[in-house]
Amino acid sequence: MLEDKNPELTPISAYGEFGLIKHLTENFSFSNPSTEVSIGDDAAVIDPGNQKVVVTTDVLAEGVHFNLGYVPLKHLGYKAVVVNISDLAAMNSVPTQILVSLAISNRFPVEALDEIYDGIKLACERYKVDLVGGDTTSSTSGLVMSVTAVGLEQSENLVQRNGAKPGDLLVVTGDLGGAYLGLQILEREHSVFLANPNMQPEMEGYDYILERQLKPEARTDIKNTLKELDIKPTSMIDVSDGLSSEILHLSDQSKVGFRLYEGKIPMDPLTMTTADELNLNPVMCALNGGEDFELLFTISANDFDKIKNHPDFTVIGHAVEQEQGNYLVATGSNELIALNAQGWDAFLKR
Amino acid sequence: MLEDKNPELTPISAYGEFGLIKHLTENFSFSNPSTEVSIGDDAAVIDPGNQKVVVTTDVLAEGVHFNLGYVPLKHLGYKAVVVNISDLAAMNSVPTQILVSLAISNRFPVEALDEIYDGIKLACERYKVDLVGGDTTSSTSGLVMSVTAVGLEQSENLVQRNGAKPGDLLVVTGDLGGAYLGLQILEREHSVFLANPNMQPEMEGYDYILERQLKPEARTDIKNTLKELDIKPTSMIDVSDGLSSEILHLSDQSKVGFRLYEGKIPMDPLTMTTADELNLNPVMCALNGGEDFELLFTISANDFDKIKNHPDFTVIGHAVEQEQGNYLVATGSNELIALNAQGWDAFLKR
Repeated sequence: MLEDKNPELTPISAYGEFGLIKHLTENFSFSNPSTEVSIGDDAAVIDPGNQKVVVTTDVLAEGVHFNLGYVPLKHLGYKAVVVNISDLAAMNSVPTQILVSLAISNRFPVEALDEIYDGIKLACERYKVDLVGGDTTSSTSGLVMSVTAVGLEQSENLVQRNGAKPGDLLVVTGDLGGAYLGLQILEREHSVFLANPNMQPEMEGYDYILERQLKPEARTDIKNTLKELDIKPTSMIDVSDGLSSEILHLSDQSKVGFRLYEGKIPMDPLTMTTADELNLNPVMCALNGGEDFELLFTISANDFDKIKNHPDFTVIGHAVEQEQGNYLVATGSNELIALNAQGWDAFLKR
Repeated sequence: MLEDKNPELTPISAYGEFGLIKHLTENFSFSNPSTEVSIGDDAAVIDPGNQKVVVTTDVLAEGVHFNLGYVPLKHLGYKAVVVNISDLAAMNSVPTQILVSLAISNRFPVEALDEIYDGIKLACERYKVDLVGGDTTSSTSGLVMSVTAVGLEQSENLVQRNGAKPGDLLVVTGDLGGAYLGLQILEREHSVFLANPNMQPEMEGYDYILERQLKPEARTDIKNTLKELDIKPTSMIDVSDGLSSEILHLSDQSKVGFRLYEGKIPMDPLTMTTADELNLNPVMCALNGGEDFELLFTISANDFDKIKNHPDFTVIGHAVEQEQGNYLVATGSNELIALNAQGWDAFLKR
């Protein structure tokens, strides 16, 4: 599918830029009344009503963020949208529009682009966001996708990274480390395949962590859950680079330190057993792995009763004075281990 | 500067993603009260007041949109912002914020990124827009820049592509074809340099067209000029892909045809003489060259008296019924030549 060697496939040049955009986007429909003007003009027009506008952008590059050897194009399109939606969820805003920029080598046929846009469309439908613009160009090599997402929200509902106070509880949604271990399994099986193309990949039994890696979801549901519980987080961020790195961001912006309890970090049993199988420390996978796209936030200690035992949330630590620093409290020994930003870093990892 | 062979230069990995973003953006200041939250959170927050939000995105890819053999990085940063600002000007909106995504090979040192951001900063200052977000990642090869720009405007002032009526006059700002001929000179001198690195490039005397290519400006001034003249265009677009292609866009969206008078197309004398020198038809350069970033718009014929003889504007044609099609009217013969979208197309041009 990737290499354009099949004469049945359509070269991108058969369309030209504008015909191509029309072809790729003609089946998209709209969910939001705030979408006034979309693709087809110089720019999109959004009616924010009396709300604030929240804007974020993320770029995914072939060979850095994904390997087309084992990432299906449809999943790539889906994930490129989700990582941006997740940023909007981390501001407690409602995602409404996206713009998609694509630089793609001429070695890809139109059918490959169709798959990417199928994934984008699925994400638009799942998250009720409207594709309102973008730009598609050829590149001399590789595939780079840049998505910009727009959300709307009343000013008083927005949650930034800078409001945590000493004594606040540190809470995370879902479980962590799975996406990173899913990637390890994909890379292992891809290496086996490269060494011997006749070998069948052994993916069975890894469903949950593979899905965490290949088809992550943004926690847009949490906004409503928190509203029902009458909780407004004091600070919030999404877990894209690893728990450790995200805690340091909240620390930096809120001018507090954190204590994170090793034993409290929520992990799926499959994450634990796979880490064991691969001789990896599951806690390190949660701390530094990233791409779980769960939400990490702080709440006033007074709100503890509202949240305890809720299946979506785990209290994993608390904020302290800034001078006290950021530490993992080891289970058993209670030893303090400094948290550092070894998180997923696109410039270090090759 | 480009290849990181100099031990005095700083590898990007010396910073890490977050340190790098901090380093690149710490000297930027803000011009707009609508900028509420910028870099450092999950997303930017913009206060639109009671205005509509206009959003556009454009991607520039190395080897397709620019050749680092002759495009200085600072100019590249500047131009990447300008092309987006130009789209907002074409909606008659006021540019307020930008987000910048960069995928860049590790072969570039931090100092190369500094130059790109110097150009971005210059454009931010020139156009009074605030850098509020972005994402920077490594790429396996080449440089891809994607800029998203946000503008604000009262609903009643926005101008789309779809309002032209038969009988409306077709008007363009400035002059056309220069950016394309500037590119031809750059490519000619670059080829000479590649053939014989000791040859000095002959750039003298080409200043205007080189500047049109390397440091284009967006016509954000036109909004005020039109307001002073009490004219609201019925449709508008910016000239990024060539006059012919832009006329076809207005035609398509407004459901009208156009007559374009060959002899009326405004061209700088240097554009004419350079076309002559290179054995190119200057009219074809204006029709298909692109990147002039002038504004092309239609106005009611009743507004002709307000605009005639104004130094910023040239009436180059008029709208007709859609069935009458889109034609260039040749000077002298009055022959009708069909306009087609041979404009700059990133998927065809290699």
